[in-house]
Amino acid sequence: MATDSILYQEILQQPDVIEKFSQSGQGPARKLAEQIQASDIRQVVIAARGTSDNAARYAQYLFGAMNRLPVALTTPSLFSLYQQPPRFAPDTLVLGISQSGQSPDIVSVLAEGRRQGCITAAITNFVKSPLAEQADHLIDLGAGEERSIAATKTYTAQLYAVSLLSAHLADDPDYLAVLDKAPHLVRQTLALNGEIEGLAERYRYVRNCVVVGRGFNYSTAFEIALKLKELTYTLAEPYSSADFLHGPVSLVEPAFPVIVVAPGGVLKPDLESFVRQLCSMEAELLCVSNVDTILQMGRTRFPFPSVPEWLSPLLAIIPGQLFALFLAAARDFDPDRPRGLQKVTETL
Amino acid sequence: MATDSILYQEILQQPDVIEKFSQSGQGPARKLAEQIQASDIRQVVIAARGTSDNAARYAQYLFGAMNRLPVALTTPSLFSLYQQPPRFAPDTLVLGISQSGQSPDIVSVLAEGRRQGCITAAITNFVKSPLAEQADHLIDLGAGEERSIAATKTYTAQLYAVSLLSAHLADDPDYLAVLDKAPHLVRQTLALNGEIEGLAERYRYVRNCVVVGRGFNYSTAFEIALKLKELTYTLAEPYSSADFLHGPVSLVEPAFPVIVVAPGGVLKPDLESFVRQLCSMEAELLCVSNVDTILQMGRTRFPFPSVPEWLSPLLAIIPGQLFALFLAAARDFDPDRPRGLQKVTETL
Repeated sequence: MATDSILYQEILQQPDVIEKFSQSGQGPARKLAEQIQASDIRQVVIAARGTSDNAARYAQYLFGAMNRLPVALTTPSLFSLYQQPPRFAPDTLVLGISQSGQSPDIVSVLAEGRRQGCITAAITNFVKSPLAEQADHLIDLGAGEERSIAATKTYTAQLYAVSLLSAHLADDPDYLAVLDKAPHLVRQTLALNGEIEGLAERYRYVRNCVVVGRGFNYSTAFEIALKLKELTYTLAEPYSSADFLHGPVSLVEPAFPVIVVAPGGVLKPDLESFVRQLCSMEAELLCVSNVDTILQMGRTRFPFPSVPEWLSPLLAIIPGQLFALFLAAARDFDPDRPRGLQKVTETL
Repeated sequence: MATDSILYQEILQQPDVIEKFSQSGQGPARKLAEQIQASDIRQVVIAARGTSDNAARYAQYLFGAMNRLPVALTTPSLFSLYQQPPRFAPDTLVLGISQSGQSPDIVSVLAEGRRQGCITAAITNFVKSPLAEQADHLIDLGAGEERSIAATKTYTAQLYAVSLLSAHLADDPDYLAVLDKAPHLVRQTLALNGEIEGLAERYRYVRNCVVVGRGFNYSTAFEIALKLKELTYTLAEPYSSADFLHGPVSLVEPAFPVIVVAPGGVLKPDLESFVRQLCSMEAELLCVSNVDTILQMGRTRFPFPSVPEWLSPLLAIIPGQLFALFLAAARDFDPDRPRGLQKVTETL
């Protein structure tokens, strides 16, 4: 039974994990924010892989939009295999995000940042990891052991850590107040998506799909696609709606499944017209949204509560996680044992 | 006939386009390199979409490895839709890469860079475009009109422009001398891949595949995947070999097609063991390589001449372009008229 899996239990733990971290994370996030301000940091370089890289994508938009701080996602192989690391400007923060803190290529980026005299920081679930050792500032997710191979609760904790850091950087009490409501909102999102087990059946024989999101939810598109690949072996490719129109839209034929993450906010008009275009191409639409008019256009609907757009990635991923879990179950795959994967992947 | 298509003609024009640009591009590339040095530029932010974004990916590795210059691929929607652009450090070069120079979101990044007082530059095939208007420095590809919707000759010209800029920045006569041989090497690569029309037949009914490359050829993996999507409607997803092992490797079952771009160089041992792992999983391997031992492991082989690894993306893409063209033909698709696409895509 899918609901007996460790993965399902960990998905359900997310409100509690975030509630706990919303207390324990305040101090470290504030301290790092103060250091960033005191050191006049002008840009952030992030090293991450897999699910953590999707949290990095969120940071790229959030720090950019809310803190006007440019973020670069770095190229770990330049530091590890090529041993030709770029020279960072001295006003650069080098940030590693990793559940395990183990992958040598990610560790090598922080080690090089430190060698060059930059401030380094790590967001991880393992405070005694090689990554943590290279970090001047450590944000411990405290999510408890994540036993299932597919990351869920550490991903939402990473998103929360990123937004907590951004809110302290902005030094905005309203921003921080919205974050206080996050555990409750995650709980609501789980409740709103209690029917996913039945909805997943329809997609039993899907081999390919695309997942589209933009802006803050570019991260969500990547993370839903990754869960679908890891757990259901569906070839799911993530796109920004803009990149999708620059070529891959030619893939769409009637019944082709497209998952669209389309929250209310700045992007709403753009995404609404994108969804309408896909409707006219007779795509099979699965809408992850908190906007009724957009949800209505979906053949399958994954709702989440109304929130400021910048917080929506924390909620929009939840139905994606559940959908991947129940689709795996509909295909008789064991969600706790994806083939060919271990919990910690070490790449050079 | 595929060989009657405009696309095929433009693929064949590539040696001449690069030969011409290797003359005309020297002056502008040198001037921009001098400006970068004189202004003590410490990082580059690149705005691009689609094929041009793949040239940007190459620049990220090349400027990093050869010039130790950090490169960030930016998030255009922060500048256009969100209107919350990050504040660039003053020692940032803002570079736009675009065949047409038309897409409003890309133009908005350069306009904002200029507004903030940064040096701006554009690599484009249209000198009278909105993008060119926002650029302090202009590198005109001079590739002649690209009539087919799928970009080929402007992509290799963009790669060459990026490497010419890098070589002038390094101020290294040996580096520049290797670039002089590029037109000849592209010609050789075309000649080595004269049999692709026959090889494509085998893949007539492939619906999904992945394309793997790393380091300098991360760009090649993305660009081969994009050509396959645009021209053949295959769901082809690009990966770095490291990211692939962090999850998506679970997709691989016997006969699953994997295109691997694996040149000689620093990554060879890593890629060789990656290819061996895929062999043991009974994947259908298509190897783009200039290393005999790696080519031998491929069920289908796309060879290119021996070159320094940093130059290999200019050659490795050629069999990818030809493969996408002939696979489109094997499926009775018109390579000059991909469904749902126009030559110039304007996104906000």
